[in-house]
Amino acid sequence: MSASAARLRFAAHVRRLRKALRVSQEELGERAGIHRTYIGAIERGEANVTLDHMQKLADALGVDVGELLGPPDSLKSSP
Amino acid sequence: MSASAARLRFAAHVRRLRKALRVSQEELGERAGIHRTYIGAIERGEANVTLDHMQKLADALGVDVGELLGPPDSLKSSP
Repeated sequence: MSASAARLRFAAHVRRLRKALRVSQEELGERAGIHRTYIGAIERGEANVTLDHMQKLADALGVDVGELLGPPDSLKSSP
Repeated sequence: MSASAARLRFAAHVRRLRKALRVSQEELGERAGIHRTYIGAIERGEANVTLDHMQKLADALGVDVGELLGPPDSLKSSP
């Protein structure tokens, strides 16, 4: 269970940030160089994402990579 | 370069926390269920670690997984 906790937290942050940017999974995938179907798997917590992919997603989302694994409410205070 | 930034940050946090606990790479590996040679690769920034392994390491180190990807100085204020 604890292993999937990180996946679900990461998934929630990616989905929330992507929606805040108002881009589709396909658009985010293009920006990050990651296939759109894999973006979907990531947002469902199904993908065991690696550090390199996490960095690519952080860059594409315009946030520090550390924010993508922060506490669930760590991004709520963003403007 | 940006891809390896996350690896190096993660590597530095794992090494610092492991040393703070005064345990060897072998001991940390046993606690986390990860081979000691892989712990070495992680601490050198050579391993493209996955979310599940990050969670196992966080649990073994007694920290929130988010801390392992935080800014380089985010753990310096720890007691």
